[in-house]
Amino acid sequence: MKQRVLTGIKPTGRIHLGNYVGAIKPALKLAESEEFQASYFIADYHGMTKVQDAEEMRNLTRGIAAAWLALGLDPEKVTFYRQSDVPEIFELTWILSCVTPKGLMNRAHAYKAMTDGNKGAGQEVDHGVNMGVYTYPVLMASDILLFQADKVPVGKDQLQHIEIARDIAGYFNKQYGGTFKLPEHFIQEQSAVVPGLDGRKMSKSYNNTIPLFEEPAKLKKLINKIKTDSSLPTDPKDHDQSVIFALYREFASQEEVSVMKDRFRDGISWGEAKAELFHAINGKMTGPRERYMELMGSPEKMEAILARGAQRARETTAPFLTEIKKKIGIL
Amino acid sequence: MKQRVLTGIKPTGRIHLGNYVGAIKPALKLAESEEFQASYFIADYHGMTKVQDAEEMRNLTRGIAAAWLALGLDPEKVTFYRQSDVPEIFELTWILSCVTPKGLMNRAHAYKAMTDGNKGAGQEVDHGVNMGVYTYPVLMASDILLFQADKVPVGKDQLQHIEIARDIAGYFNKQYGGTFKLPEHFIQEQSAVVPGLDGRKMSKSYNNTIPLFEEPAKLKKLINKIKTDSSLPTDPKDHDQSVIFALYREFASQEEVSVMKDRFRDGISWGEAKAELFHAINGKMTGPRERYMELMGSPEKMEAILARGAQRARETTAPFLTEIKKKIGIL
Repeated sequence: MKQRVLTGIKPTGRIHLGNYVGAIKPALKLAESEEFQASYFIADYHGMTKVQDAEEMRNLTRGIAAAWLALGLDPEKVTFYRQSDVPEIFELTWILSCVTPKGLMNRAHAYKAMTDGNKGAGQEVDHGVNMGVYTYPVLMASDILLFQADKVPVGKDQLQHIEIARDIAGYFNKQYGGTFKLPEHFIQEQSAVVPGLDGRKMSKSYNNTIPLFEEPAKLKKLINKIKTDSSLPTDPKDHDQSVIFALYREFASQEEVSVMKDRFRDGISWGEAKAELFHAINGKMTGPRERYMELMGSPEKMEAILARGAQRARETTAPFLTEIKKKIGIL
Repeated sequence: MKQRVLTGIKPTGRIHLGNYVGAIKPALKLAESEEFQASYFIADYHGMTKVQDAEEMRNLTRGIAAAWLALGLDPEKVTFYRQSDVPEIFELTWILSCVTPKGLMNRAHAYKAMTDGNKGAGQEVDHGVNMGVYTYPVLMASDILLFQADKVPVGKDQLQHIEIARDIAGYFNKQYGGTFKLPEHFIQEQSAVVPGLDGRKMSKSYNNTIPLFEEPAKLKKLINKIKTDSSLPTDPKDHDQSVIFALYREFASQEEVSVMKDRFRDGISWGEAKAELFHAINGKMTGPRERYMELMGSPEKMEAILARGAQRARETTAPFLTEIKKKIGIL
């Protein structure tokens, strides 16, 4: 039997090259594997801990759904749904709360980072912490356990959430008998950190991103902003030190990459290198960009895809919740 | 338009005279009033913060539903449902969590009592506190706000929960525009504290209760255990100091009570007084006891009543949740 793999996608700002290379590409590759049955969901309610503007929430959710579909997520293969379309998740969240010691939440990294920050700033410990932020590890455990996920791909910073989900599953199983599978984490194949315009890690918070679906003229302009040194066009260049090369590698074929390495060694002007990078990205993104625009222009089409995904998800979550409720004496 | 009044009923142990006089009688009286449209629900998921045994949970829930119906709750007049049959409550709980500052929960009385106890005993502050206990004021706010309750009858010890629900409603309304009605508390007509067998307040924790549906022989035996002083049968007695009289008053007619007052003043033996009390309780409870036994013996009948209640409840909760989701940009 295929292993179940589950990934939550937070509806954060415009997708950039860093998101694509670091998260979307590996997730889509994983979904292609015959070993796994993948469920990917848009964690819109999770996003609500931070995004508290209706228009922004709607746009972010649509944008992220359109992006994944445009980049090749096959909704026939992957169960692709919105968290908010599966009410069983929230009922299970309450059930799990009742077997979760509060101490477990006190030790959650994201919460601790906030309280440490508050202490450092001489504020009340819980200043600016809402109950969504504090309790979301229970929601995440519910996401994972309700789908009986075998594997959850995570970055290192998210490892603790899987441990918490395993702990909560263990508390429940001990109290009510074996019910939940203990999920395992799955550290994804290390992709190189994607550098941004200024050479630091590409990140919205550094304001150094290149949006994935930028139109060609703007994309070219942004690429021209990538910082370079003052070496002459004919000087040999170290590709390992180049932001341009690091990005190029992610969008060009192996053969093209090998040719580019030679050109760096032989001397290539930064202008030319940037032009090649533009062609590589633009070449690869022309199709997805068109599909993205099309999806953004027909919300009812996307809605239908997500509704079908939710329906498929609930074919397993609804009967499983019924089983859980019987075990706790609620049915 | 009728005011909406909402009451949650926790599935705790066997109903005793104290529960009946202090909570059930006034709630049933309120439900009869033309001023109000009452919704009463069995807070089974709330009970799960403490009751974590399936068989016990099932029995308590059935017992409490049967008791209220047997005592005269009219499910055609009152929307009578189980909390666990209304999934919208749990989805809204998450939504409200995201606008609830954690500090509000830190100040909740029930939680503070536990942490104070832990501190006193030299334990970790959160020792023995599960996340259900900690977060249930948000669940309670969801119960209340989802039903757009105008009034919530509470004892003084529960006042804070209404304040918390109002605060949370206010945070949401401020962020997303007027959505939730601010519920008002409603301190119920003071009924005298019902004394138990030993003269202290009747309470499961004092082990001094008289179960409401006790069969006649056992009821008689329990009543005979009520503590009395050593005054002679012919001595005049102060009815205000008598547990027997205090209970009698709750089950006899005004006329009977007046006669009993005279008999106390003129001298009545404790044995006679106890016999009168037995007759008063037994006379009033014979019908309800039979209905209770009948309901406990036909769970499918009770199930149908509760299912109908949930259906009625969801006729208002489901569209209201849809409205709320639109406001936060989730739909």
